Amino acid sequence: MSDALSTTVMKGTGVVAGTAYARAVRVRPRPELPTADGTVAEGDRPAEYDRFITAADTVAARLDARSEQAEGSAAEVLKATAGMVADRGWRKAVRKAVSSGQSAEYATVVATDKFVAMFEAAGGVMAERTTDLRDIRDRVIAELRGEAEPGLPEIDGEGVIFAEDLSPADTATLDTDHVVALVTELGGPTSHTAIIARQLNLPCIVAVGATVRDIPADEMVLVDGALGTVTRGADPDLALAAVAESRERAALIAQWRGPGRTSDGHRVQLLANVADGNAARLASDAQVEGVGLYRTEMSFLSTTEEPGVDEQARVYRRVFDAFPESKVVIRTLDAGSDKPIAYANLDEEENPALGVRGLRIAHGNEGLLTRQLDAIARAAEGRGDNAPTWVMAPMVATAEEAKWFAGLCRERGLTPGAMIEVPAAVLMADKIMPHLDFVSIGTNDLTQYTMAADRLSPRLAHLTDPWQPAVLRLVRHTCEAGAEAGIPVGVCGEAGADPALACVLTGLGVNSLSAAATAVAGVGAQLAEVDLERCREIADAALAAEGAAEARETVRTMLRA
Amino acid sequence: MSDALSTTVMKGTGVVAGTAYARAVRVRPRPELPTADGTVAEGDRPAEYDRFITAADTVAARLDARSEQAEGSAAEVLKATAGMVADRGWRKAVRKAVSSGQSAEYATVVATDKFVAMFEAAGGVMAERTTDLRDIRDRVIAELRGEAEPGLPEIDGEGVIFAEDLSPADTATLDTDHVVALVTELGGPTSHTAIIARQLNLPCIVAVGATVRDIPADEMVLVDGALGTVTRGADPDLALAAVAESRERAALIAQWRGPGRTSDGHRVQLLANVADGNAARLASDAQVEGVGLYRTEMSFLSTTEEPGVDEQARVYRRVFDAFPESKVVIRTLDAGSDKPIAYANLDEEENPALGVRGLRIAHGNEGLLTRQLDAIARAAEGRGDNAPTWVMAPMVATAEEAKWFAGLCRERGLTPGAMIEVPAAVLMADKIMPHLDFVSIGTNDLTQYTMAADRLSPRLAHLTDPWQPAVLRLVRHTCEAGAEAGIPVGVCGEAGADPALACVLTGLGVNSLSAAATAVAGVGAQLAEVDLERCREIADAALAAEGAAEARETVRTMLRA
Repeated sequence: MSDALSTTVMKGTGVVAGTAYARAVRVRPRPELPTADGTVAEGDRPAEYDRFITAADTVAARLDARSEQAEGSAAEVLKATAGMVADRGWRKAVRKAVSSGQSAEYATVVATDKFVAMFEAAGGVMAERTTDLRDIRDRVIAELRGEAEPGLPEIDGEGVIFAEDLSPADTATLDTDHVVALVTELGGPTSHTAIIARQLNLPCIVAVGATVRDIPADEMVLVDGALGTVTRGADPDLALAAVAESRERAALIAQWRGPGRTSDGHRVQLLANVADGNAARLASDAQVEGVGLYRTEMSFLSTTEEPGVDEQARVYRRVFDAFPESKVVIRTLDAGSDKPIAYANLDEEENPALGVRGLRIAHGNEGLLTRQLDAIARAAEGRGDNAPTWVMAPMVATAEEAKWFAGLCRERGLTPGAMIEVPAAVLMADKIMPHLDFVSIGTNDLTQYTMAADRLSPRLAHLTDPWQPAVLRLVRHTCEAGAEAGIPVGVCGEAGADPALACVLTGLGVNSLSAAATAVAGVGAQLAEVDLERCREIADAALAAEGAAEARETVRTMLRA
Repeated sequence: MSDALSTTVMKGTGVVAGTAYARAVRVRPRPELPTADGTVAEGDRPAEYDRFITAADTVAARLDARSEQAEGSAAEVLKATAGMVADRGWRKAVRKAVSSGQSAEYATVVATDKFVAMFEAAGGVMAERTTDLRDIRDRVIAELRGEAEPGLPEIDGEGVIFAEDLSPADTATLDTDHVVALVTELGGPTSHTAIIARQLNLPCIVAVGATVRDIPADEMVLVDGALGTVTRGADPDLALAAVAESRERAALIAQWRGPGRTSDGHRVQLLANVADGNAARLASDAQVEGVGLYRTEMSFLSTTEEPGVDEQARVYRRVFDAFPESKVVIRTLDAGSDKPIAYANLDEEENPALGVRGLRIAHGNEGLLTRQLDAIARAAEGRGDNAPTWVMAPMVATAEEAKWFAGLCRERGLTPGAMIEVPAAVLMADKIMPHLDFVSIGTNDLTQYTMAADRLSPRLAHLTDPWQPAVLRLVRHTCEAGAEAGIPVGVCGEAGADPALACVLTGLGVNSLSAAATAVAGVGAQLAEVDLERCREIADAALAAEGAAEARETVRTMLRA
């Protein structure tokens, strides 16, 4: 018998499997920003500026010290940030505001705003540094107030990070030597934290709610990313055994070699989602059979003028060149909604996710699409039969759209397909598929529309769960229609990164799975443990569940059995 | 043979059937508002004010004259508006702005803005008059500039109104003695113009595009609201024959008597959508069998504090009292999205239509729902078995939500149901329906989510068409699940107001149709002409169509055969 310690289990949405047992580490909140007052008496202003200099020097020294302990790019990021705290121009701007009677805290805000505006006007790489500027502003203000430094604290030993949600800036310097799991109060399976956790293969639970705030810092917690549970007061022996078992699984994953197949040899193509040539080169080192989703819009998010056909072809060729002997599925511009592109998107919209986005933009501007198809055709020239180039359109909703898009592709010798992410495209698959050579289900958007719930809304994360049986039923229908039409059906949403869900999708009849390259080995190792008949059994169980939580738990239990 | 006149046919979305042949009348655009300049020399200011007085008096006299020719409430509206032009306070505010050197045009804007702010602060009925204030501002500015009066012109004889889109203010004084059809460049089947046209039973085509601008004023045009066509250069004899046939249909409609049934006696309950007690009293004069959708949120759009249970019960009882011997289906608050309610909706959202709306608000605030259910139970006390009160929740997406809502209703002796408007609710109908006693399909929102297209976006009207076969397939699935579960399935979107579509819905197995009370006779007369077997045949044809346009035309051709 274990001690009489009371055990409490808190439940969220597990998004990366794996078990960790370590002490709780809390991300310290950003300070509230001061407002203008301008009441520092003239005689006190030199001392006020000295107070700022002392705080800034302390912050810089601390960052320098951390950069010496860090390695590689993290060290460089920290060093560059320390350099910005020492910047003479920035300090001069603070002095000026202090000289006009503002407090050191508010002067720090004023000077930072000025530099942020300058950096943003400069654009490009400079604009990307504005997050760092705001970070040092917050650190200096906290120091001036005698508060703890905001953001991720330094960790001794191992720790489980608890946060409301993690910002991109927080995750950039995530110390993977010491962080063993991530738990956030908000977010969903497709939130930034979940995507990063998947890339780093860190056990992760999101949307666990505010109850985890009760956990005091440094208390030992057991995190199970597969079950989505955070356990307080766990028996240390049992907890350590669970971690050991989880490590065995990690070892299995490390040993896995592609290509993807079930234990009885049923092939499931495992592909990578990429955003540009760099990502494609990194992905080509993983055990993937090609690219299942190349998001072309990601290369043009900060481009104000439409790039010419030659320029576009150069950009696309970088991805093709990373996979000279493999399939690449390229998606035409999915501009709009949360990815507006200056030269493609026109109006402010009440509901951008339900607006003129994806293929709909080309409806009123066909040249934008045909020039992109010309560039894709040019970039794909010379690729052999073992390296097919497939082109798909986002947001297809009707047979008319599919037919029109396919015609434009075939005129250029390209192989046409469509994303299946609008519910209507599933329901009309019998009319849409005859025009196409393949389809790929985008589970993130398909879930959003099927559940009528914004996938970026933290308050609706329980609805936008890829385990929703409603969505799985649409996947089944798509696979049946694909078999009928004789065209392959892939999945390219975050659902394809979840090993248990990958077994369900295989059982439903999906032919390929595309996800972050780092997730592929976990999926492959899981698939290798089950046969196709078992995949079909667990798929049936998932389809019969009342809701997403029941589907997930039933399948995970069946897979452990 | 007719003359060698060339015939041109322009096509939009027909939303109210009926044929008209009359001259084109163009709505004159609102004037662009002047900006401040303040350069009128001091000596010229008295003359500038006189210029304003002359213009205002001219506008007032014109409105007075029109009010004498008009009848009933239109006359009152015109007279009240003329009175506002003569208002001394408003004129004084103009004088003040002119005295400071502003032009008469700009002074009119300044004075109007001031009164609009005052009226809005007063709230209630006063706030509703701000549209009139802006209307007289525009009329006076046009007069000052020597331009034609904006808005709907006076019509001699009969005219077809052509507009980019009609505002609520335009439609308020629509001269139904002279207007025989409406054609708008923008809008969709659920836009304001379409709803008004349906209420007035005026043939109406929306989303016809900018090509209709080429039609010169006073040219004769043939409008077919069933086909969605505007024909230039039509043979006058053929056109007049088409109008005569359309009149015969109107006569059939006038003769129709409820209740709703097909020619072979298959019963389809025809019900009214209402927003408050007044609308319910008006609807009770129509041949409806009760209320199919009482939108409770419409009574509280301008309420800042949650009304108490007693106050709510009083509001609901007004609707129940209008139907003391009939079924009333009441929907709990569908706050959020385009109908925000101050005391229920919390945050700004990126995509409000995919946000925390409908039943989801109660997820975090159960008291808001239980207090409303308490009020409904209280208001329904004493209603007999022949006057059942059914209560349904908006935006149900999961079995868990249906179960929770049904439990709260049954605890209070209420009959629970759900709106079927989230695609997931259709797909999970086998899990959702066992908890409920009825469902009602909200075709407007179901179409919006199924097509992933904002139903208020004029650029996506071709997608948000209730004839989309994808949506009809979901209706069929819902009816099949309803039959399986043994509960009735209704439809309460705008689809239920389209006579041809009503036959399709009947063929799909829908048990009741709820729409604007004014649309019911047209639906009933059409249903009385076909038998159930024919309804099933046309439903199959609609389901098999490639797209919405093909579905609509196939069915209309079959109904004419």
